[in-house]
Amino acid sequence: MGGAVGMAIRKKGAASRVIGVADRPETIEQAKALGAVHDATLDLAAAVQEADLIILAVPVRLIPEIADLVVQNVKEATLITDLGSTKAGVVGEVERIIRSHESPVSFIGSHPITGSEKTGIESAKEVNLEGATCVLTPTPMTDHEVYKTLEDFWKELGMKTMRLAPEEHDAILGRSSHLPHLVSYALINAQTNKSLDLSGPGLRDMTRLAGSDVSLWSDILTQNAFEMSKIVRAFADEMDMLANEVEILSKQNNEGSEPARERLFRYLADAKQRHNKHFEPDKKDSNKKLRTLDTQIFPKE
Amino acid sequence: MGGAVGMAIRKKGAASRVIGVADRPETIEQAKALGAVHDATLDLAAAVQEADLIILAVPVRLIPEIADLVVQNVKEATLITDLGSTKAGVVGEVERIIRSHESPVSFIGSHPITGSEKTGIESAKEVNLEGATCVLTPTPMTDHEVYKTLEDFWKELGMKTMRLAPEEHDAILGRSSHLPHLVSYALINAQTNKSLDLSGPGLRDMTRLAGSDVSLWSDILTQNAFEMSKIVRAFADEMDMLANEVEILSKQNNEGSEPARERLFRYLADAKQRHNKHFEPDKKDSNKKLRTLDTQIFPKE
Repeated sequence: MGGAVGMAIRKKGAASRVIGVADRPETIEQAKALGAVHDATLDLAAAVQEADLIILAVPVRLIPEIADLVVQNVKEATLITDLGSTKAGVVGEVERIIRSHESPVSFIGSHPITGSEKTGIESAKEVNLEGATCVLTPTPMTDHEVYKTLEDFWKELGMKTMRLAPEEHDAILGRSSHLPHLVSYALINAQTNKSLDLSGPGLRDMTRLAGSDVSLWSDILTQNAFEMSKIVRAFADEMDMLANEVEILSKQNNEGSEPARERLFRYLADAKQRHNKHFEPDKKDSNKKLRTLDTQIFPKE
Repeated sequence: MGGAVGMAIRKKGAASRVIGVADRPETIEQAKALGAVHDATLDLAAAVQEADLIILAVPVRLIPEIADLVVQNVKEATLITDLGSTKAGVVGEVERIIRSHESPVSFIGSHPITGSEKTGIESAKEVNLEGATCVLTPTPMTDHEVYKTLEDFWKELGMKTMRLAPEEHDAILGRSSHLPHLVSYALINAQTNKSLDLSGPGLRDMTRLAGSDVSLWSDILTQNAFEMSKIVRAFADEMDMLANEVEILSKQNNEGSEPARERLFRYLADAKQRHNKHFEPDKKDSNKKLRTLDTQIFPKE
């Protein structure tokens, strides 16, 4: 993601100079080859000294310690942001670090909502920021002018911006991103070897996220554990409710099975309607009409 | 799916004549335009009379009543199959119908494991049978020679074949296909309007299946309710276990949180390993090494 932001900055001319900091020499070469940086270095302390904007593109668990290094090495009232997928914990910790150093730097959390199950500079080209939303998470400590500067920066990269409190961000992204990831891993673990062998494109798509980086996602789930404990419990209860419905349906000739069938139909229909409204708003709902006999094929040898 | 099978038959020359039966005149025109049939008709009774192989490409709920019509109209010992996603109920009912008519026709269930969330002749071109697996579900009533004929037919279309008892098919596909579909609908229903607005490609992929035909899928879940009640309950229990783990993680400084963190990491890592082994067997696991500081970008204005 850091690579993708660097490429966007250079493409849009949003900064006169982009300096990347890497932990491995190969990453420096890759970042240069991609055109993600003007220059790159392994020396974080030197790189940040003169920077006006510092973007911490590291896994959420590492943001506080990297922020601490940055705060101790910048020259003056720089603006620092991050790209982390969880916010409440990170923002609180970084603000505490800034206070403890009595530093004049500002920190505002950012989260560009776009991504891929891949990580690392190799996948930078696959991330498209244009038109995507970047959430900014100011706090009561945030200065309005500084907020405006960061907002303008993301807009210059072609992104829409949205302001949310860090806790609000975590509750919303917990549903839209962290829950789907956890469910994707759980769906793989629900399979047997035989069922994996007999799976089609549905399971493949539903489990693409289970190819995501394990350290990154165990960190995200841990960082957002407060919101996630409620969200995952609610989802478990929902699946339990569905198990009850299906169990009623499995008892044929049971007097409760017809209402259960109707409830299940309604449940699926509501979900489909919400799905199509959000993900396919332009498409006429061609499936609305109940199809019956439209595709029988009777071949004759 | 019927359209896709018709197109494959004609492409491979697997039958000298393919006659489609539709419930609407437009479908006849579409099937002809696609090259899925040599001819098509609304008259099922006339179409099936001389057929050597009859493929029932209708939603599972309608298979028995269509099979009944077919059995009453064929001339002699024809072979009938279907393309339904559930098998035990359908196969049992169709065999009962054949017995009740004292008909000499044979029925063996088929399920080509491939598909799309779309239905209808319009999406026939998006289904690729080549290289996919077709499950055949014979029973003790099945004649070996007849089985061989049907197996050869699917192989001629470029498919691999697999033999499973109908109940075994339903238990396996319940995990690999029906559970992911139900979870996809449930993930949509777990969203708020705000979380939908702040979702990325992950949620989009995880809920693609919620765009599936509602009648078709409430039928499949109902037909496979016996196996699904066990599978959905087990998945609900799994999500409940995960909710417990995340709840432990949410209580910071709790002495149980470090083991819980390790268990969660292990859970995700096991799932990722199984995922990559099955879905990306050729790819070296480039994410195996824990990444730390490889993508920081420090732009300077």
